[in-house]
Amino acid sequence: MQFQTPFQTHAGGPDAPVIETDAVIIGAGPVGLFQVFELGLLEVKAHVIDSLAYPGGQPIELYPDKPIYDIPAVPVCTGLELTESLLKQIEPFGATFHLGQTVTVVHKREDGRFDVETDKGTRFITKTIFIAAGVGAFEPRTLKVDGLDKFTGTQLHYRVKNPADFAGKNLLIVGGGDSALDWTLNFTSEGPNKAESVILMHRRDGFKAAPASVAKMRELCDAYEMQFMVGQVTDFEEKDGKLAAVKVTGGDGVTRVVPLDVLLVFFGLSPKLGPIADWGLDIERKQLVVDTEKFSTSVPGIFAVGDINTYPGKKKLILSGFHECALAAFGAMPFINPDKKVHLQYTTTSPKLHKVLGVESPVFD
Amino acid sequence: MQFQTPFQTHAGGPDAPVIETDAVIIGAGPVGLFQVFELGLLEVKAHVIDSLAYPGGQPIELYPDKPIYDIPAVPVCTGLELTESLLKQIEPFGATFHLGQTVTVVHKREDGRFDVETDKGTRFITKTIFIAAGVGAFEPRTLKVDGLDKFTGTQLHYRVKNPADFAGKNLLIVGGGDSALDWTLNFTSEGPNKAESVILMHRRDGFKAAPASVAKMRELCDAYEMQFMVGQVTDFEEKDGKLAAVKVTGGDGVTRVVPLDVLLVFFGLSPKLGPIADWGLDIERKQLVVDTEKFSTSVPGIFAVGDINTYPGKKKLILSGFHECALAAFGAMPFINPDKKVHLQYTTTSPKLHKVLGVESPVFD
Repeated sequence: MQFQTPFQTHAGGPDAPVIETDAVIIGAGPVGLFQVFELGLLEVKAHVIDSLAYPGGQPIELYPDKPIYDIPAVPVCTGLELTESLLKQIEPFGATFHLGQTVTVVHKREDGRFDVETDKGTRFITKTIFIAAGVGAFEPRTLKVDGLDKFTGTQLHYRVKNPADFAGKNLLIVGGGDSALDWTLNFTSEGPNKAESVILMHRRDGFKAAPASVAKMRELCDAYEMQFMVGQVTDFEEKDGKLAAVKVTGGDGVTRVVPLDVLLVFFGLSPKLGPIADWGLDIERKQLVVDTEKFSTSVPGIFAVGDINTYPGKKKLILSGFHECALAAFGAMPFINPDKKVHLQYTTTSPKLHKVLGVESPVFD
Repeated sequence: MQFQTPFQTHAGGPDAPVIETDAVIIGAGPVGLFQVFELGLLEVKAHVIDSLAYPGGQPIELYPDKPIYDIPAVPVCTGLELTESLLKQIEPFGATFHLGQTVTVVHKREDGRFDVETDKGTRFITKTIFIAAGVGAFEPRTLKVDGLDKFTGTQLHYRVKNPADFAGKNLLIVGGGDSALDWTLNFTSEGPNKAESVILMHRRDGFKAAPASVAKMRELCDAYEMQFMVGQVTDFEEKDGKLAAVKVTGGDGVTRVVPLDVLLVFFGLSPKLGPIADWGLDIERKQLVVDTEKFSTSVPGIFAVGDINTYPGKKKLILSGFHECALAAFGAMPFINPDKKVHLQYTTTSPKLHKVLGVESPVFD
């Protein structure tokens, strides 16, 4: 995903020093991004963590090119345009993004702050946490075949981290979307990552992927550079503790054995509430219970905004998340700067907010 | 105020038939306009009443050309652009606007609906009312001189309804903004409305009005076509029950008597809660008390959204008003269509909402 508006990312990891901060936002969807803005107006800098490799959340993941009509004062925009606009709007506030990682640990410290840690080992000590995780972290949809799980990470993969790992191997790639087709073309092309052989398999002879990629794949099949099969993985064969082959049931009802070294599965992403469920917060039907004054969870200092929270009347609308961000930012100030008096100011008239936004204050008569 | 997006207005008045409707929205500011949108998505048509002669409310009245930075996903826009965007967004929903009139009567009927009437005599019978009146109806700021009030509407005017009424008269025009200057130039120009004499008075020799108008006014003074005075009205003289002259204290501290037929005062507009205070709704510090589930006032069927309402945590932000509109629309459905089950649908994916919005539903794989 390429954005025109730059944003600051941070690699993190277990060797990086602990980051001390006022605010950690979990989730870089539209509501998480707008939380950066509302905190920014109150002169609070934030760190943003997301399980995806880019900001934007559901609208980017599920409908980057589909029109959205109910963002107030934006008659129509795509998920991509929405994300671009929000990235532009928060640019003055210098948030740091920690992408492609999931928060695993949230723990209240004796000094009242929170320890936060991600699955990549990035560590924070923060005064406040804003959970803007939507429906949860996006995780790859898995292939449901009994017993196949144990090969995950060795011969069964749902992501390609390092393409060189698969060079010279016999690959079975499963899926019909852009990821499946893009990797199929990648591993079939001449170059350092070229596989020994590539079979693409999809449950039907029709694709969600870009038509140009599909046409290119068909050309490669015609040239005997790769194979395409219609079918579904229904079983597997093991030899010396290794995955030797999968059994594939075709559209014709016949089951065939397909030998392989590596099985790559691209079934898209599905959301998981994940470790959030274990942080001791009040939960109702997989949603975090909040008040409507500050959008605080049951743990003071932890706020929840957007689709992940619930309260009487809650509607899962982006515009509701925006409102929740504003009130949560004010609600968080006693944790961040207890001695500061916070007044509501308006971006149209406040010279202080103009300074924060990096725009010039007009001079009025 | 000229808008590019057309909207449907209705003249109304005491002779027009009573309008039966599902929803009356009081206030055509950004929140009132977005209430049209949220009701529209639920297939409810609305009538919108505003005391100003055009939609847009405070942003149009107070800062049409000043930038606003905190509309989510709109990094910057002026009050005029905000209004244009909202008018465009609500275009599919065919709301009817009743402008330049103030609601004077709200009365609960035996059948559970409400009688609503404006100061122009427009009458409605409606199932629900949405008060989106911001800081109240905008009314002209008055000239504070003891006893002068009684001439309001005869010889003292804060608005020009029919310019021909002032043709051939001796006019004193007070104010330094565009309205004062525009009418000064209008009544000094050759034509059917030309006054016998025109004096413009302002408290100082400096103007908020457009520089071109000011320059034109100074030319007319140099040509003895009119006069400009620095000063303030401090008293008046009455003769045979008529306003004969005002006493003006100049910048030099000297008080002069200025004879006149008509006094036109243009001090700008100031908001008034007005008759809303008398409708039996719970009020706290001039704000209507609402719940945060449906944004209902203390009278079932009457909702309040935007700056006019209050609840724990309330911030007077346009983006909060947008959220309130969404929940109020859902909250109103039991009054409008008690038998209908209402589900939240998304504008990105719902073919039904696409039909309502008048856009084509894309066909997905």
